[in-house]
Amino acid sequence: MAGYLAITGGVGGAKLSLGLAHVLGPDEVVFAVNTGDDFEHLGLSISPDIDTLTYTLAGLANPKEGWGRQDETWSFMETLTSLGGETWFRLGDRDLALHAYRTDALGSGRSLTEVTADIAARLGVAHRILPMSDEPVRTTIQTASGPLAFQHYFVRDRCAPEVTGFEFSGAATARLNPAITELLPSLNGIIICPSNPFVSVDPLLAIGDARRRLSALDVPVVAISPIVGGAAIKGPTAKMMAELAIPSTAAAVAAHYGDLLDGFVLDEQDGDLHGTLDVPTVVTRTVMVSLADRIALARVTLDFLDSLR
Amino acid sequence: MAGYLAITGGVGGAKLSLGLAHVLGPDEVVFAVNTGDDFEHLGLSISPDIDTLTYTLAGLANPKEGWGRQDETWSFMETLTSLGGETWFRLGDRDLALHAYRTDALGSGRSLTEVTADIAARLGVAHRILPMSDEPVRTTIQTASGPLAFQHYFVRDRCAPEVTGFEFSGAATARLNPAITELLPSLNGIIICPSNPFVSVDPLLAIGDARRRLSALDVPVVAISPIVGGAAIKGPTAKMMAELAIPSTAAAVAAHYGDLLDGFVLDEQDGDLHGTLDVPTVVTRTVMVSLADRIALARVTLDFLDSLR
Repeated sequence: MAGYLAITGGVGGAKLSLGLAHVLGPDEVVFAVNTGDDFEHLGLSISPDIDTLTYTLAGLANPKEGWGRQDETWSFMETLTSLGGETWFRLGDRDLALHAYRTDALGSGRSLTEVTADIAARLGVAHRILPMSDEPVRTTIQTASGPLAFQHYFVRDRCAPEVTGFEFSGAATARLNPAITELLPSLNGIIICPSNPFVSVDPLLAIGDARRRLSALDVPVVAISPIVGGAAIKGPTAKMMAELAIPSTAAAVAAHYGDLLDGFVLDEQDGDLHGTLDVPTVVTRTVMVSLADRIALARVTLDFLDSLR
Repeated sequence: MAGYLAITGGVGGAKLSLGLAHVLGPDEVVFAVNTGDDFEHLGLSISPDIDTLTYTLAGLANPKEGWGRQDETWSFMETLTSLGGETWFRLGDRDLALHAYRTDALGSGRSLTEVTADIAARLGVAHRILPMSDEPVRTTIQTASGPLAFQHYFVRDRCAPEVTGFEFSGAATARLNPAITELLPSLNGIIICPSNPFVSVDPLLAIGDARRRLSALDVPVVAISPIVGGAAIKGPTAKMMAELAIPSTAAAVAAHYGDLLDGFVLDEQDGDLHGTLDVPTVVTRTVMVSLADRIALARVTLDFLDSLR
């Protein structure tokens, strides 16, 4: 393969990933997905970012939420509520089947990479979706009131606690997915999707020597800013930056990635930053509402990447 | 409590249990339930006999099947089928919630007895449903083609393999549920429901010294024959007996329980056996179609028990 690697988290990253999958064939782009959000819940192994991307590429994602399935039913959740069970993490009946299938497969010794590929194939996804690692890396959010497992912070507590830092348990000793490592020498470029830098992209960069390996490649790395006009399109990125005393700006995101980046994609609303950063930038519409928006951003990003080679 | 202990398996036993629960209050009858059928599947801890009894006493059982819920939906199973998952054990969306709730509770260190009581209370069941043990006892069916876990034999292979014997792993070292042991001195009688003697009742009797303890009590033990007119009302009892070279008769069931029994309830179809067994018998209609049938059999059984004291 001579193509691209896209590093992505959940909803925001999946939007651009869908655009990339429309522009590039299965041999031209591979998705490396955050598993720091993965967790065990009610006996099930749940991989929220992998599933969001899988559903998105399969055309099965709930168009309103961006996560979960479009044709979902909720009998399980209704009954769990009546039993007084833990209902803070919403699990649809169809979504549950995927978690049960994965839990069963992992229990029988298959790797997350194998199970993810199997599920994607079953749902008709032709592109490769690769977990960042087959070993567990778990994101903990450090808050003013103590550490929280990622999903407790993100879903149960709705990102309300004040963030003071992050920990990626297992990252130091985990191995970057060998299927990703194998691809590196043949890449033309790396795209960091407009995902949360702290909790969707940093977990991958924290794995072993992943960041150094990516930096050392002789191909450009381009990120798309998840911060537009000082706010996050979705999720707690801007709130986290404020709590960490980092300006909630696209410039601060670029600075956070630092020398890993060879280029940075700014939204039109941040056009005034063009030419002011330490890294080459391109300005385009990054707010993706329609499929056309996703495809357009994918094209601009790829053209920009190619211009940097 | 001065009352009765009913030992029961799934569907057949639950029918009589419902009758008993109509006749006797929560302080007058307690149900000791087989857990030899329990298993782990798709990451979930499933207790089929406990659930069948719970749903039955809660008025939630599927009236057609006798197991599962009446208001069930099947999105999970449909989706699992489309993923190519293991679908031989049918799990409804609402039923799943109960399994997930139990799995979660067991995982957090609660006992099966506690979780079962909790679920029963949530579903409005006033009577006590006690797992035969809080320690795992697992029924294995020995067959001509090798050993099979109970649910593989019963559900996946639809009882087709030829049975050569039974094993109750863990029974020798498991403790009879202490909540059952505590009740023993205050009982007026013990009812063995018309469940499969080999795989629904024997697992409890195989626990430690349970059989000896029950025999040693100075109260009558009465069983209701699950074999009527040489056939089983439901399930593989008669087929198992044939394969084990035991006559498929009510008399053979009584002989199987042996000196544990102080009385045996025969169906009208087996009226010719009355007075011919080594144990006192009563003849009544044991085939339960309506709720009235269940209540009537409960009354006859209790009157018979009291006459034996």
